[in-house]
Amino acid sequence: MATYKSIIAYDGTDFQGFQRQAEELRTVQGVIENALRELGWLERSITAAGRTDAGVHARGQVIAYALDWRHEIENLSKALNANLPPDVAVRQTEVAQPGFHPRFSARVRRYSYTLISTPVRDPLRERFAWRIWPEPNLEAMEAAATMLVGRYDFAAYGQAPSSDGHTIREVFRAQWHRKHDVIVFEIEANAFLHHMVRRLVGAMIEVGAGRVKRDEIRELLDDPQLRWEGRIAAAQGLCLETVIYD
Amino acid sequence: MATYKSIIAYDGTDFQGFQRQAEELRTVQGVIENALRELGWLERSITAAGRTDAGVHARGQVIAYALDWRHEIENLSKALNANLPPDVAVRQTEVAQPGFHPRFSARVRRYSYTLISTPVRDPLRERFAWRIWPEPNLEAMEAAATMLVGRYDFAAYGQAPSSDGHTIREVFRAQWHRKHDVIVFEIEANAFLHHMVRRLVGAMIEVGAGRVKRDEIRELLDDPQLRWEGRIAAAQGLCLETVIYD
Repeated sequence: MATYKSIIAYDGTDFQGFQRQAEELRTVQGVIENALRELGWLERSITAAGRTDAGVHARGQVIAYALDWRHEIENLSKALNANLPPDVAVRQTEVAQPGFHPRFSARVRRYSYTLISTPVRDPLRERFAWRIWPEPNLEAMEAAATMLVGRYDFAAYGQAPSSDGHTIREVFRAQWHRKHDVIVFEIEANAFLHHMVRRLVGAMIEVGAGRVKRDEIRELLDDPQLRWEGRIAAAQGLCLETVIYD
Repeated sequence: MATYKSIIAYDGTDFQGFQRQAEELRTVQGVIENALRELGWLERSITAAGRTDAGVHARGQVIAYALDWRHEIENLSKALNANLPPDVAVRQTEVAQPGFHPRFSARVRRYSYTLISTPVRDPLRERFAWRIWPEPNLEAMEAAATMLVGRYDFAAYGQAPSSDGHTIREVFRAQWHRKHDVIVFEIEANAFLHHMVRRLVGAMIEVGAGRVKRDEIRELLDDPQLRWEGRIAAAQGLCLETVIYD
């Protein structure tokens, strides 16, 4: 019996989020646990780096599970993929370091948020991007993003998870850039509050639209009495890209 | 009463193709006709440039329909989009020239076919691309593509539509290229036979994999007794990009 670490990608559109809920709700955790049971997995629950919301995607979610696997490790990914639906895939599997926990061992999480800006709906892109129109001012959004880098109380931009209890997070990088025909925000932090990236993106879009001043974004930082009451960016633009461990 | 021409985009994944069929099958034509009826449309059928198969996408399908519309023309696209599901959108609408027919007036059709090449499944990209592994030789595929340009009998690569009866088509352009992290084939012709692009892509991939010689692709041209019996590329990589009229 060893503990394995797998990197998971999924299209979150048809899931009620990552975390297992009532039997009848389709969750990423639920379909992965079902696939693992086909390989003889006997635990009650896998552990994961982050609980993405309904509709949020992942290219680099990390999970861990103990399994009695007697074959080559590459075949473990293949066996899991054979039991997973088309919208979830195991990208890579390795034996975890002793004491490894996908959430508590994580040092850095990177999320991306993808926007498109067109006047009409785009059925070929809106599954993985949020459409806004008119096009916001990217320079204003870039300037707002730089103010987020640092160690702050982000209470105004999200709820603390129950396991944690405080709302201080350290953002290492926050940048907007154009990538081909989309606009992408990338943010790295030690951890995130619930809905934090979507609230920050919503706030920066308001800055880009000229409806909110850049300084208002800053004023909400480090004041746990305040709340961002404006726009929250839609789930389908968000993707958990990478989780970094030591 | 005027005849309108609209450019339509759709994610073909959840449709049984473009063409209306039995009531219970979800088709692109069916949902567009339902949306038009909400605006008072009374005809029996719209006309379209091409009948894409189940799972095939479009960015530039063209349709025509007669409608008594008393408002601004931009509002016609908006009104249709309000009645269409998220996987279909009207990109643009204009009054059609007298005698215009989306299929018979078309001079050039352009399709794209998108491949990704990764060893494991990719839930965030396979909706709009076909995954093949190992990676085929792109230079060999490019060389095979150049042989398709010209006026040939393509009977070996597809069935004639019932409205036509012959299998001679003229290909104006056929090129493979890398675009960001995908491999894209673009082909322009006066018209296409049923399954022609998917058979040609399947044949070129076999050339790129070294299993079929480039000259075999050529030998099947202009000989209506022969058939390409090999691989047919999957529907989800194909997209009707543009239809050009005089």
